[in-house]
Amino acid sequence: MQHFNNQQIQELEKRYRTNLINSLSGFKSANLVGTSNNEGLTNLAIFSSAVHIGAAPPLMSIISRPDSVTRHTLENIIATEKFTINHVNVDIYKQAHQTSARYQNISEFDATQLTPEFLNDFEAPFVKEANIKIGLSLAEIIPIKLNNTKMIIGKVEWIIIPKESIEHDGKINLESAGTIAISGLDTYHKTQQIERLPYAKSYQ
Amino acid sequence: MQHFNNQQIQELEKRYRTNLINSLSGFKSANLVGTSNNEGLTNLAIFSSAVHIGAAPPLMSIISRPDSVTRHTLENIIATEKFTINHVNVDIYKQAHQTSARYQNISEFDATQLTPEFLNDFEAPFVKEANIKIGLSLAEIIPIKLNNTKMIIGKVEWIIIPKESIEHDGKINLESAGTIAISGLDTYHKTQQIERLPYAKSYQ
Repeated sequence: MQHFNNQQIQELEKRYRTNLINSLSGFKSANLVGTSNNEGLTNLAIFSSAVHIGAAPPLMSIISRPDSVTRHTLENIIATEKFTINHVNVDIYKQAHQTSARYQNISEFDATQLTPEFLNDFEAPFVKEANIKIGLSLAEIIPIKLNNTKMIIGKVEWIIIPKESIEHDGKINLESAGTIAISGLDTYHKTQQIERLPYAKSYQ
Repeated sequence: MQHFNNQQIQELEKRYRTNLINSLSGFKSANLVGTSNNEGLTNLAIFSSAVHIGAAPPLMSIISRPDSVTRHTLENIIATEKFTINHVNVDIYKQAHQTSARYQNISEFDATQLTPEFLNDFEAPFVKEANIKIGLSLAEIIPIKLNNTKMIIGKVEWIIIPKESIEHDGKINLESAGTIAISGLDTYHKTQQIERLPYAKSYQ
């Protein structure tokens, strides 16, 4: 086993450290976040930080980094208070990854040939090629002062999902929808269900 | 396609809604969080909310729910300012899931027959059966007032990992370490790498 302490982590070559630390949390969700600015220019950015915050009210969060290519996402969410989360699937992961390039004066939708889709009069663009799409309204932006990132929390306003991917009790069968996972900064994985386990009881 | 709006989501049967909303973020990391109280009684709880917050300093977060079986985890982290994150692997996912049962007066380590391991004089217990283990010190607890949850941010103090699972540039090969993913509340998945993509450039 390799042991790294905090001093050794700090002294790692920058790219090595970035790869290592970005892999530490385990498998991550792969999502495209769609936004528009007030002039209607769309933006699309891949995020691996979406997490469940609560079911009632239905809340999800993403982490926004400072001065990065996702800066427009944050600005658009502040301006319009709307965004979409679209699951990356096996057919679009290369285009999804390409949204992380530094584009200016062109929408990542156009640059990557993904299609903005406006549904149910929701103001932010969904990704037509995604199978699971979520429309959210901004609920809160929480600054994380430790490293100048921001936690963006959205309230789920719309869920759009293939009927056949919803199991009898509401659980989504992500594999049937083609949803994939990320590790580190750049590695994409398909999955295979091992087992769905029953609610755990203690028998005390 | 099935479309749910916010009113329809709110009116879903509670268990159905919980399953649906817990599936929305996509695949989630599967981690066991190890803690001790000031008397040395250990606690172990499964979390699917660990995310990367930053690489320099190395920061990770988990979301703690109020009045849940993970309440002891939060109390112990506040008391000792130390916790561990241990990747769930294919050999221990049933025991990992079982830590979500409501135990009192017994450590989840004992209840599930996972083994607390104290390494490098770090104060919180690692999970011996895990292959990737991270020791963290409490950096900040951020209250999320919207639903009374808390974001617990830890600074990475130790990384313990099989040498052969680290690629030449620092990326962890999670599959070689047996790490698995979660969907929803209760479903475990192994993964298969599709592709590692190069850093995206815009060629503008």
